[in-house]
Amino acid sequence: MYIGVDVGGMSIKAGLVSSDGILTHKKVIKTDVTKPGEGICLDIARLIEDLTKNNGYALKDIEGIGVGIPGSVYDEKGVVRYCCNINMINTPLVQILKDELAIENIKVSNDASCALLGEVKFGAAKGFNNVVLVTIGTGIGTGLYIDGKLFRGVQSAGGECGHTTIIVDGQECGCGKLGHFEAYASATALLRQVQDAADLHPESKLNELIARDGLSGFTIFQAMDLDDETAKQVYKQYIKYLGTGIVNLINVFYPEVILLGGGISREGEVLLEPLTQYIRDNVFGMKYNPPVEIKTATLFNDAGIIGAAALSME
Amino acid sequence: MYIGVDVGGMSIKAGLVSSDGILTHKKVIKTDVTKPGEGICLDIARLIEDLTKNNGYALKDIEGIGVGIPGSVYDEKGVVRYCCNINMINTPLVQILKDELAIENIKVSNDASCALLGEVKFGAAKGFNNVVLVTIGTGIGTGLYIDGKLFRGVQSAGGECGHTTIIVDGQECGCGKLGHFEAYASATALLRQVQDAADLHPESKLNELIARDGLSGFTIFQAMDLDDETAKQVYKQYIKYLGTGIVNLINVFYPEVILLGGGISREGEVLLEPLTQYIRDNVFGMKYNPPVEIKTATLFNDAGIIGAAALSME
Repeated sequence: MYIGVDVGGMSIKAGLVSSDGILTHKKVIKTDVTKPGEGICLDIARLIEDLTKNNGYALKDIEGIGVGIPGSVYDEKGVVRYCCNINMINTPLVQILKDELAIENIKVSNDASCALLGEVKFGAAKGFNNVVLVTIGTGIGTGLYIDGKLFRGVQSAGGECGHTTIIVDGQECGCGKLGHFEAYASATALLRQVQDAADLHPESKLNELIARDGLSGFTIFQAMDLDDETAKQVYKQYIKYLGTGIVNLINVFYPEVILLGGGISREGEVLLEPLTQYIRDNVFGMKYNPPVEIKTATLFNDAGIIGAAALSME
Repeated sequence: MYIGVDVGGMSIKAGLVSSDGILTHKKVIKTDVTKPGEGICLDIARLIEDLTKNNGYALKDIEGIGVGIPGSVYDEKGVVRYCCNINMINTPLVQILKDELAIENIKVSNDASCALLGEVKFGAAKGFNNVVLVTIGTGIGTGLYIDGKLFRGVQSAGGECGHTTIIVDGQECGCGKLGHFEAYASATALLRQVQDAADLHPESKLNELIARDGLSGFTIFQAMDLDDETAKQVYKQYIKYLGTGIVNLINVFYPEVILLGGGISREGEVLLEPLTQYIRDNVFGMKYNPPVEIKTATLFNDAGIIGAAALSME
């Protein structure tokens, strides 16, 4: 049995995962962001102990542990280099867990890399060797799988495709820089674009819906179902932003598959159809090039846990 | 002895290159862009025969031939997929050359990939395993060297970093799409930016220089030497465009070295100093990450020939 841990700014989720990628048991705790990084590592160790014992296992039954972190990780050293929303700077996470749990096979990586590995081993990208995952959430996370291996550059310091500029001097990103892909194509960015459009068009059904039910990730889709012109315009522009970042990734990496994750990816064809069209129209030399599949991830919320566990199966 | 061929829209250059990367003899012909792709391949074959015989060699003395093409190449099949300024579409270049020359070891790749390989084997990037080359010329060419291997994605269809968008709905690129890195940071783009600024500021020394001597790649640097404010502003903005594209590449690939090629790279510190500063200020998480060296290429005009030859030494 393996354990995957998905660390987030709000919660830390751990799960028991079989060698064929089945998540059998899960336990979630709140992330105590007031603690220093070492304290969070100790919380993770306790969570792993609880998960193991509560479900009839002993630590010696665990063949490997993988941890996904929403930040920059020096995979090869097992160190979390830094993390925006958790207090980790050069935190030796793997060493701390080894000391606490006396288990040798413990690995850590960026959370989007973990999610991608989960999809490649057990999900939507099974059998592919060249895959790019774009996770649309609070930010934009990207996982890169090249020639059958996770890729994040020298000392795993790269792979930050959400923090590439698509508009010089554009909107401020969560990281403080301007015009990043994430600042235009994250779920957070879409919500902002929806609110701005509703404010500009108080007569729109979009604005009516927000006034009645409040703003959520579904509002834009509800308003489009009502044939609201404002909503359709906002969404068209959003597809252009998202499409631009993905076309950039294709022009550079030219993978076999682009995998979309995050809540919005569950919208299915409403997302896939216009996005695929935008990509076809804009990839450099598309008509001479091999096809690229645009698919949605299938492991959803458990991708992080299953993928982290998969990290320790490598 | 090896032969490297550097195919361009204006000329085709071929050279005899020793196994330690020394270019001993060179021959150049004009590119006949009116010919179909197969005709150009035959011209290349004749050029190789002439180069060999005129310098006291026979074809059987040639251990390998490499060809660099300014377009999309399916390296593994030896086929030029397409090329903007030469009439090649799915042209089986390697097969044609093998049939004509009866030499087995013949390879073809994108010209920027070749130039990068030359720099890695014999030039400024010797000893490095992770290098990105940005060649600033009529367009922006990029070569990617990852974990000791050239990288261009599935079927070598990627690596087109010059055609990534840095300004959504921005300036038109040579390829017809909008807002690409190439449309803002190529030498051609800089010339356009200089001319536009001179038109807007007829009182500037920049405008005086253009009126007196005409516009060249040196004008902007001459005007800056004269302390011209207009020239300084244009150049600052150009560094931002060039820096943005390079920061994007670092955030994604995180190489050990960024190598700059093309005419402007010969300006040395006038280019390197502000560009390095821009990169330091803008790479995601730079203060926690390993350093990235920003260097200029050293093989200059011969990089294409030497690198193409290096392709056949692999």
